[in-house]
Amino acid sequence: MSTDLAQALDLSAIRRRIETVLTDFLHRPSSVPAQRGRGSDELSQALADFVLAPGKRIRPVLCVLGWYAAGGADDETVWRTAASLEIFHAFALIHDDIIDASETRRGRPSAHRAFATRHADRPDADAYGTHAALLLGDLALARSDALLHAAGLNTRQRDTVLPLIDTMRTEVLLGQHMDLTATGRPSDDVERALTIARYKTAKYTVERPLQVGATLAGAGPDLLDVCSAYALPLGEAFQLRDDLLGTFGDPAQTGKPVLEDLRSGKATVLVAVAMQLADAERRRTLVSLVGRPDLDEDGAALVRRILRHTGAEETVERMITTRYNAALSALDADVLAPQSADALRSIAARAVVRAA
Amino acid sequence: MSTDLAQALDLSAIRRRIETVLTDFLHRPSSVPAQRGRGSDELSQALADFVLAPGKRIRPVLCVLGWYAAGGADDETVWRTAASLEIFHAFALIHDDIIDASETRRGRPSAHRAFATRHADRPDADAYGTHAALLLGDLALARSDALLHAAGLNTRQRDTVLPLIDTMRTEVLLGQHMDLTATGRPSDDVERALTIARYKTAKYTVERPLQVGATLAGAGPDLLDVCSAYALPLGEAFQLRDDLLGTFGDPAQTGKPVLEDLRSGKATVLVAVAMQLADAERRRTLVSLVGRPDLDEDGAALVRRILRHTGAEETVERMITTRYNAALSALDADVLAPQSADALRSIAARAVVRAA
Repeated sequence: MSTDLAQALDLSAIRRRIETVLTDFLHRPSSVPAQRGRGSDELSQALADFVLAPGKRIRPVLCVLGWYAAGGADDETVWRTAASLEIFHAFALIHDDIIDASETRRGRPSAHRAFATRHADRPDADAYGTHAALLLGDLALARSDALLHAAGLNTRQRDTVLPLIDTMRTEVLLGQHMDLTATGRPSDDVERALTIARYKTAKYTVERPLQVGATLAGAGPDLLDVCSAYALPLGEAFQLRDDLLGTFGDPAQTGKPVLEDLRSGKATVLVAVAMQLADAERRRTLVSLVGRPDLDEDGAALVRRILRHTGAEETVERMITTRYNAALSALDADVLAPQSADALRSIAARAVVRAA
Repeated sequence: MSTDLAQALDLSAIRRRIETVLTDFLHRPSSVPAQRGRGSDELSQALADFVLAPGKRIRPVLCVLGWYAAGGADDETVWRTAASLEIFHAFALIHDDIIDASETRRGRPSAHRAFATRHADRPDADAYGTHAALLLGDLALARSDALLHAAGLNTRQRDTVLPLIDTMRTEVLLGQHMDLTATGRPSDDVERALTIARYKTAKYTVERPLQVGATLAGAGPDLLDVCSAYALPLGEAFQLRDDLLGTFGDPAQTGKPVLEDLRSGKATVLVAVAMQLADAERRRTLVSLVGRPDLDEDGAALVRRILRHTGAEETVERMITTRYNAALSALDADVLAPQSADALRSIAARAVVRAA
């Protein structure tokens, strides 16, 4: 069996086990029996449907890899902790979709759209959908805690892992807030766009999940530093790839309407670089088009041409490559078990070279 | 010094100490330094402002009383745990105000209104306000966890208190969802309205905070049952009083627009009882007026007359008295320290006999 195949099998085995933990937890009968049959099933069922829809499970997978990288042996605790990160992520996605008014998520209706459709007979169906999704996100956050608290952490693990997860949560929320504040009109503030990518994606999606797993297994500061040295550039590269796909990608593959980022005026590095590189006239064109809710395909085509002709697209591709290489170099550190380094290399490649 | 005065002093001493813990925690420098000066201060500052605005602190006070009732001795752990319930409550209020589109909270602008006003120069100020408040609520939930995780619980306390708090959170969210689903048009389903009051208020505001404190101190099942026997009827009485004040109260005292409950068609016991008692014509009038977003003072006056003439108001007053008496009887149990019973009696009186 080739090394590549063994890795692939490992990662899918990890994913399968995460699915099992999630399914068991979310289908466990409610501990709030008087609620049954009085409308509460809708919320619990919607949470199970949302979380168990197919997904990459990147955060739990990284948590498990962090655990093995730090020499952890098989233990139910790491699987439950890892799965709790996925339920937390459901919270983040559901609320993010409300904020972005996204119609779809992973090719299906977003949570607020699904509730609105299911209650289309209500005169306030749209508001109902948004508010039910707000509560669904809240429930996801509360249930992710419940799973974490039932993960069987020992005293040392609780004292080190819970504060790390609390920091992760605060970071992603402050990142969302920076993103919300920056969204609307194009800016040439590349540093701000990178900071948002660092907090919303690099720390949240890569660094903290890896460190949570490593910390669970008792990793020391050296290994935690290696996690950061790998995770931060990789996470930024991941977000930069996402931004390129959000503007130039194929909606049939990404499952995301291709005009969404440009219409909302999302503060991407891509647009910020173009604003820096463009001459006065092209800047004016970008300012007049990016962030227009009624931007059409012709307008978007013009924006794309500017993103290409200014060299912004190419610059962002170069930024991805630089960060990808930095992430791979970090894996040469000798504190990592070789097998873990291989798995992390494979994840890095998939995060950066992809069409969806 | 009279017994009453000693109690009052005790309760205000408890409140003052809770304020200190909250202030210390919320004003602690951010653990996310790179965020400072990039817009994140707005969210952290807004959280401190919201939580530290004057409030009754009823949940932390009950938590501390539960602790003393179970024989707990002074310990920083109970104060931090109690304070974390108040930050959780900020989360619940902020999101509830979004769902109810409430303009004010405690006589000040609600969180989403405050954000919208502060960013009035944005073309999307209202949506921005709602979305920033959504994130503020999320941050409150995450920070309440951080304080709870840093409360210094020992292993026994973690194993018993964390699951209880997780149950409390799930209960209040499922209660909110039942409330959301039931709101809109008047119904004669008294049982449903009582179930909502039980989950949104009785369990969340009274039973669980008391039990959290008692459990922290190692209370056995007998004492936890006494907590429930006191808390559930008292919490229902509290909600019934709230419903009466929401319809018949003086907005200058309640700090809440008096038409809000009727305009939204909130599923109160008061309206459900009136729907049961009314003749066909009055039922039709209620159905045509309750839940109308444009209900005016004349319409509201007509609804109030029906609530009076059908005897619904009086019925709800009687339901309050029955529940208040049941709560007081529960305090005769000999598992309670006499001083704790006195404090709980005083709280019960204030919850039920009040104008705001």
